[in-house]
Amino acid sequence: QTAPTGTPTLAVIPGDGIGPEVTAEALKVLEVASPVKFESTRYDLGAERYLATGEVLPDSVLAEIREHDAILLGAVGGKPNDPDLPPGILERGLLLKLRFELDHYVNLRPSRLFPGTASPLAEPVLRKGEIDFVVVREGTEGPYTGNGGALRVGTPAEIATEVSVNTAYGVERVIRDAFARAEKRPRKKVTLVHKTNVLVNAGSLWWRLFEQVAAEHPDVTTDYIHIDAAMIFMVTDPARFDVVVTDNLFGDIITDLAAAITGGIGLAASGNVNPDRTAPSMFEPVHGSAPDIAGQQKADPTAAILSGALLLDHLGHPDAAAAIEAAVLADLTEREPGTSRRTSEVGDAIAARL
Amino acid sequence: QTAPTGTPTLAVIPGDGIGPEVTAEALKVLEVASPVKFESTRYDLGAERYLATGEVLPDSVLAEIREHDAILLGAVGGKPNDPDLPPGILERGLLLKLRFELDHYVNLRPSRLFPGTASPLAEPVLRKGEIDFVVVREGTEGPYTGNGGALRVGTPAEIATEVSVNTAYGVERVIRDAFARAEKRPRKKVTLVHKTNVLVNAGSLWWRLFEQVAAEHPDVTTDYIHIDAAMIFMVTDPARFDVVVTDNLFGDIITDLAAAITGGIGLAASGNVNPDRTAPSMFEPVHGSAPDIAGQQKADPTAAILSGALLLDHLGHPDAAAAIEAAVLADLTEREPGTSRRTSEVGDAIAARL
Ligand SMILES: CC(C)[C@H](C(=O)O)[C@@H](O)C(=O)O
Ligand SMILES: CC(C)[C@H](C(=O)O)[C@@H](O)C(=O)O
Repeated sequence: QTAPTGTPTLAVIPGDGIGPEVTAEALKVLEVASPVKFESTRYDLGAERYLATGEVLPDSVLAEIREHDAILLGAVGGKPNDPDLPPGILERGLLLKLRFELDHYVNLRPSRLFPGTASPLAEPVLRKGEIDFVVVREGTEGPYTGNGGALRVGTPAEIATEVSVNTAYGVERVIRDAFARAEKRPRKKVTLVHKTNVLVNAGSLWWRLFEQVAAEHPDVTTDYIHIDAAMIFMVTDPARFDVVVTDNLFGDIITDLAAAITGGIGLAASGNVNPDRTAPSMFEPVHGSAPDIAGQQKADPTAAILSGALLLDHLGHPDAAAAIEAAVLADLTEREPGTSRRTSEVGDAIAARL
Repeated sequence: QTAPTGTPTLAVIPGDGIGPEVTAEALKVLEVASPVKFESTRYDLGAERYLATGEVLPDSVLAEIREHDAILLGAVGGKPNDPDLPPGILERGLLLKLRFELDHYVNLRPSRLFPGTASPLAEPVLRKGEIDFVVVREGTEGPYTGNGGALRVGTPAEIATEVSVNTAYGVERVIRDAFARAEKRPRKKVTLVHKTNVLVNAGSLWWRLFEQVAAEHPDVTTDYIHIDAAMIFMVTDPARFDVVVTDNLFGDIITDLAAAITGGIGLAASGNVNPDRTAPSMFEPVHGSAPDIAGQQKADPTAAILSGALLLDHLGHPDAAAAIEAAVLADLTEREPGTSRRTSEVGDAIAARL
């Protein structure tokens, strides 16, 4: 990764709910940590804009966003069950549209149980080893393609389908990325998670390409587990995972569980990465917009701040990224259990360590 | 549920690996607990038969099995990565074929953390309340239908699809079953788990029918959570669940996690139920054939024994079913941590309590 020359540009999408609050802290920390100054442009997209204007992601806005070096996103989403905001509008029209249009085929989700952070897992499980893995979730295919449809909607004869689309092109490139990441990690292990015994078409494709790429990486250990068995290992022996590669939907499911066992989605960062750099990559916390606590400075901005670290790393500043991570680690270690700080206080505390 | 008149007949499919061992114990306990004597017929199906004869489930065998009052299944599956046994052959050709052909649209998976049983979850999570819920997993539709296919297989231009099929007919009946079960439980709560914000076609169908059936059950509390969020709740607040209704694939995933947090798949029972009784229902432990420990009397038969209890309940013997559960509970409470009993010893101990 080499840094872009000139002033790097950042498209910032604070979004809805707690999105703006956590994004503000991510930017605060980014500013202190980054060796370069960013030129940021803010884009107001999300539930609020949709409800006010009916616009989700106008083509002109997408075109502008595309010209940036990277995107920082807070969270989008309105109040649950808002009749004016049918499910899928923002997810399909904004979030997934960005991931698909900008070819974010690597949805990168690291999970690490920082020392001192509370896990819902019991001591005997935690004693098995350090939890430090990364899920490489495919981001542009699978059941997320919006293929499928419905017939006779609203009648007792309705049929609705969802089509998971998997191509050799799409599967091979994400598997290659997973192996490349494993090569750089001490344990050099890649686990494929799928459901090859039931989803036999997609499963054989994933399996074949996994075997093929594995053969080119004789120093990387490989492992396959079904998605259902992965659930069990995640809560009984998460230390066994190093790099996990999986499809879009399995990745969605497994990364929320991974976040939960490593301290919660308040800490889980993610990158929607276009490794070929044909379009900007997008960094966002795994959590949603949490409208119930919005505007109250109650949200934990750590996930957004760590997403900023992933952004810096992607733009060629691994040292600055590592510095943010170290600051977060130090902050987490010293968090007083039972006390709670305001969103901005957490950002301040982490920024102050840099 | 009324008991069948005359001698009830049981089709027994011990299967592979540890299947025969755990099935033997389930039958042992069933014999002691049941107020009626069963006439059992054993069917040798599974990896062993397939590898020896190429047969998975001959039509004539299916026709015979269909004539029974119920089916007891151990586990099927050969050694992992056996080149002679491609993934899916037994799953699609035997297990799922039985579920689909016999219209097992309710895949019933109770989860309960028995007192004294070790959970991988930490004390603060367990203190939130009793874990005692049942997942009503749809069993005849969703991504399990075997729809989809592949083009240009083995080439760099391969495309493989999996189609999730959801019909109003199929979704409504399983949701109705879930509400009927909730009506009989003290908490009377049904949680729908789906991914309505991404899988919008299937999601709206599930959502619409859920709302519709809920309106007919004003005394049942309802709740909706996305599959990814369900992962989080499962490990941070599993006590919130009472009856969970979900599709075939989400149900597969969530029930392995549910089993893991309530003591492991050694304890997880399941019923593939045809509530309309147009064909026999099938009862099986959630675990697989575990070929690595097969034939060594190391497997825990508790899940198979509890599946036998579900079978008795389905055939109209709720008291006998409750007696088995009570015996298992007593046995679990007195299990010495760190010691291990042989498979048959566990069966003997539970049978002795009846
Ligand atoms: C909001 C939703 C579309 C999204 C997803 O399913 O990918 C979210 O759950 C995530 O994991 O980023
Ligand atoms: C073996 C497999 C086909 C099966 C499933 O996916 O349903 C199993 O995992 C289960 O949960 O019973």
